[in-house]
Amino acid sequence: MTNSDPTPASAPAGKRERLVAGAVRLVHEQGAEKTTLADIAQAADVPVGNVYYYFKTKDELLQATIDAHAEQLATTLRELDTRHRTPAARLKALIRTIAGQGDLAARYGCPQGTLCSELDKRDDELSRSATKLMGITIDWTETQFKAMGRRDARDLAVALIASYQGISLLTNTFREPELMRRECRRLERWVDGLSRGRG
Amino acid sequence: MTNSDPTPASAPAGKRERLVAGAVRLVHEQGAEKTTLADIAQAADVPVGNVYYYFKTKDELLQATIDAHAEQLATTLRELDTRHRTPAARLKALIRTIAGQGDLAARYGCPQGTLCSELDKRDDELSRSATKLMGITIDWTETQFKAMGRRDARDLAVALIASYQGISLLTNTFREPELMRRECRRLERWVDGLSRGRG
Repeated sequence: MTNSDPTPASAPAGKRERLVAGAVRLVHEQGAEKTTLADIAQAADVPVGNVYYYFKTKDELLQATIDAHAEQLATTLRELDTRHRTPAARLKALIRTIAGQGDLAARYGCPQGTLCSELDKRDDELSRSATKLMGITIDWTETQFKAMGRRDARDLAVALIASYQGISLLTNTFREPELMRRECRRLERWVDGLSRGRG
Repeated sequence: MTNSDPTPASAPAGKRERLVAGAVRLVHEQGAEKTTLADIAQAADVPVGNVYYYFKTKDELLQATIDAHAEQLATTLRELDTRHRTPAARLKALIRTIAGQGDLAARYGCPQGTLCSELDKRDDELSRSATKLMGITIDWTETQFKAMGRRDARDLAVALIASYQGISLLTNTFREPELMRRECRRLERWVDGLSRGRG
C-alpha cells in the first residue's frame, strides 16, 4: 500500500475525501475493529455500494486513514517550524497544542495513539504502517533537542512523546481534561530546564 | 457488577479460573473487541456451551478480566512494599519490574493500558470499571512520593505512570524492547533526583 491517491480522474470529486474524513473521525471515536464500512459510508454520506469503488477492503480505507493522519501531523509540525524560531519555543508550542486537546483526549484519547494501540495487536502490514505516525513526531522532536545541543536528543524525544501518549491514555481513562493540562505545564517546565542545560 | 465470585459451590473447580486466565491472555494478545467467547472457551479448554454457566455475557467475562488484573496489580504492589523499605527504592523496583517486561510490551503492549485504551472508546460501566486499573498504580505511586515528602506527589505519580504507559505504547508500536529499558533507566535517574530534592 502506498500514499498515492487511487481515485480515478473520472470519479466524482470529494467522495473519496469524505470517506477518509469519516473513517478518521469514526475510528477515533469507536476504534478500527468496531467501525464498519457501512458506518463510514453513512458518516460520509456516500452510498455504501460506492465504497468499493474507492477502497476494495476495510484495510485499504484504514491505510488511507493512517496516511491522512501522517499528512496532518506533518502539516502541524511544519507550521510550528515556521511560527517559532528557537527549538525550545517549538517544543513548548507543541506541548501547548497538545494541552489544548484535553477535552477531545478525555473523550476519545489521542487519535494517532489509540489507533496505533489497536493496530499493534495485529502484526501485519497495516500495523507496521501505523509506526510512521509515532515516527513523524518523535523525529521532529529529536531534531529540536539536537538543535538545543543535546546529545541525548533521541532519548529525550522518546521521553516527551511517551509522556504525551501516556497522559492521553490517563486523561481518556479518567475522563479528566485537567490531567492533560497539568502534565503539559510540567513538560513545559521540563523543556525550559533542558534548554538551560539542566537534566 | 462486583468483585464477588459468582461460581456456585457445586460447580466443577477450576473452569471459571481457566476462563478468566484465558480471557486475560487473549484480550492482551488480540484485543477485547476481536476476542470471542468461543476463542476464550477453546483457550481455557472449556466446552463453549459451558461458558454461559459462568458468564452470561462477554461483558461479564471482561469485567472478571478487569478484576483479575486489579488483583494482580495489588499483589505486585504489596510485594514491593514488603521487599523494599524506602519509597525511592520501591519506586525504582516498580520501574525495574516494568523494564523487565520490555519483550512482552514490544509484542502486545501493557496488558492493563491497552485494555483501558480499547474500553475507553466505549462510555459504559465496563469502561468506568477499567479506570481502577490505572487508579491502583497511580495511588500507590502517589503514596511513595508523599512518603518522600513531595507536596506535588499526585502530579509526580501521574507523570510516572503516564511515562510508563506511553513508553509501553511506543515499545509496542516500534516492536523495540530496548526503548522501554532505556526510558526506565531515565526514570530511575529521575526518581533518584527527586529523592535528593531536585526537580
